[in-house]
Amino acid sequence: MSCSVARAVDAIGDRWTVLILREAFWGVRRFESFQANLGIARNVLSDRLRRLAAHGILERVSLTPGGKRAEYHLTRKGADLFRVLVVLMQWGDRWTHDGEPPVRLIARTNGEPIAEMAVRDSDGRALGLMEMRPEPGPGANDATRRRLAAVPGGAGSRYQSDRST
Amino acid sequence: MSCSVARAVDAIGDRWTVLILREAFWGVRRFESFQANLGIARNVLSDRLRRLAAHGILERVSLTPGGKRAEYHLTRKGADLFRVLVVLMQWGDRWTHDGEPPVRLIARTNGEPIAEMAVRDSDGRALGLMEMRPEPGPGANDATRRRLAAVPGGAGSRYQSDRST
Repeated sequence: MSCSVARAVDAIGDRWTVLILREAFWGVRRFESFQANLGIARNVLSDRLRRLAAHGILERVSLTPGGKRAEYHLTRKGADLFRVLVVLMQWGDRWTHDGEPPVRLIARTNGEPIAEMAVRDSDGRALGLMEMRPEPGPGANDATRRRLAAVPGGAGSRYQSDRST
Repeated sequence: MSCSVARAVDAIGDRWTVLILREAFWGVRRFESFQANLGIARNVLSDRLRRLAAHGILERVSLTPGGKRAEYHLTRKGADLFRVLVVLMQWGDRWTHDGEPPVRLIARTNGEPIAEMAVRDSDGRALGLMEMRPEPGPGANDATRRRLAAVPGGAGSRYQSDRST
């Protein structure tokens, strides 16, 4: 089944990959810096950087003619992942740190910690899980249509009995 | 280094785990239903359900005295992951499907597709990557403080030169 969530996880769903992205968001561009900051094995780092480049999330930019020295820059696709990292961080802060977050993100606009990210409708109202339902989009294939037709009340129907058996 | 993002990925950063959660959000509770809907190997499904229960994301609820028949219910911690799945889906829609999303989430409040999730400041203004900086939070340990002290301009400093080498 075609699924954007699965594709996103294929691209970034690895602990080291996410930590490399965190470092990239904090300004790191060099192999040696990633390596020193994360204490990651060099072969693992090479592999993850190559994968991130293959997914178009980082771009390898040669600094010398032979390409021996290089930097890894976030692409627009990669930079757009900051929303994903922020919501992962907020979930981790809330549920794995007993309310004592190790890092706070401060907005430059007003100097305050950023707000909790919320799912909102097109009018800006925050939505709970029960207030959404999935429907086939323009890119839905037959398998997706079949699966969605079996979703009892749409997204959030977990409070109903399981009718898919 | 203590990191909420890494802990979140440890809990859910696996393709099957995320697909199991997607099914749970769509109302699936039984082992056989997860198995049929995902076409996942039974031993892999058992392993992932056990891990999700160990992380307190799903709760195993026995339906029969011996516990042979059971359902897997989302806990509050698990239900709160819907924000993470929505932002992953939106990123995947935008960057891996050429603008043809297979699934659309419709808000029950107004019948329209939900909005793109955004990082916002405490006044509700949407923030770009460059408009945030990280600082140590109440749960920061020494390693976190050292790492953050080395972030040149805070989050989004990727456009500056790499000073961490």
